[in-house]
Amino acid sequence: MKKISRRKFVNQTTKAAFATVVAAGVVSNTQAMIEKGTFIHHVYFWLNNPESKEDFNQLVAGLKKLSAVKTIASFHIGKPADTNRDVIDRSYSVSWMLLFKNKADQDSYQVDPIHLKFVEECKHLWKKVVVYDSVDV
Amino acid sequence: MKKISRRKFVNQTTKAAFATVVAAGVVSNTQAMIEKGTFIHHVYFWLNNPESKEDFNQLVAGLKKLSAVKTIASFHIGKPADTNRDVIDRSYSVSWMLLFKNKADQDSYQVDPIHLKFVEECKHLWKKVVVYDSVDV
Repeated sequence: MKKISRRKFVNQTTKAAFATVVAAGVVSNTQAMIEKGTFIHHVYFWLNNPESKEDFNQLVAGLKKLSAVKTIASFHIGKPADTNRDVIDRSYSVSWMLLFKNKADQDSYQVDPIHLKFVEECKHLWKKVVVYDSVDV
Repeated sequence: MKKISRRKFVNQTTKAAFATVVAAGVVSNTQAMIEKGTFIHHVYFWLNNPESKEDFNQLVAGLKKLSAVKTIASFHIGKPADTNRDVIDRSYSVSWMLLFKNKADQDSYQVDPIHLKFVEECKHLWKKVVVYDSVDV
């Protein structure tokens, strides 16, 4: 039996895998390109009271509720990692990373009642928000 | 036969799915939390010559080669989406989003010869790099 390395297998089957993957609702995660056409919406929050664990928890709880928006494909609620180099910005409090299948799904998310409610309920918590929206090159 | 909505199914099976998913090397992508423990390394590049399609292509080609680093779980090479609100920063040229299974994999990537070579070959292209490293809250 011919041995195929994991790496080679991924390279050879990426396209087929992504096709399957769209249907199954999963993305390959082994040195794999994020599914083609994905819209990445990455939001960083700077809290008004960065020392307040309560405010931090309130924002995280709000984001957990916000994750219920149906057009979200995948989400991640993060905080700065324990890395520290000149180029790293670790001044934010919370990272909110969303993958959408396409721009239309992101547009829908923006006006989703759950999203509007989240902004209304949580906007007092932050002093600054920076958003980076990215699509395939 | 009892009908289970896609949404409900995902909620009920998320934990089991993630367990399977780790083994299979995939992440669920249906309103699903990114796999627990994931380290997100998101880099934004500002080119010295943002109008140069050649420089842009050179950086993208460099990132494609860089994606060969074995500890990378998933990657995305992006450019600013066609969205434009006050909070959106669309001044960067290229987005490089990496998912690692854990911090150790990210640490390994930082010193991988492929990474060092990429920096050496491409650093003349950019004037600014901002990195956001995020881990689970």
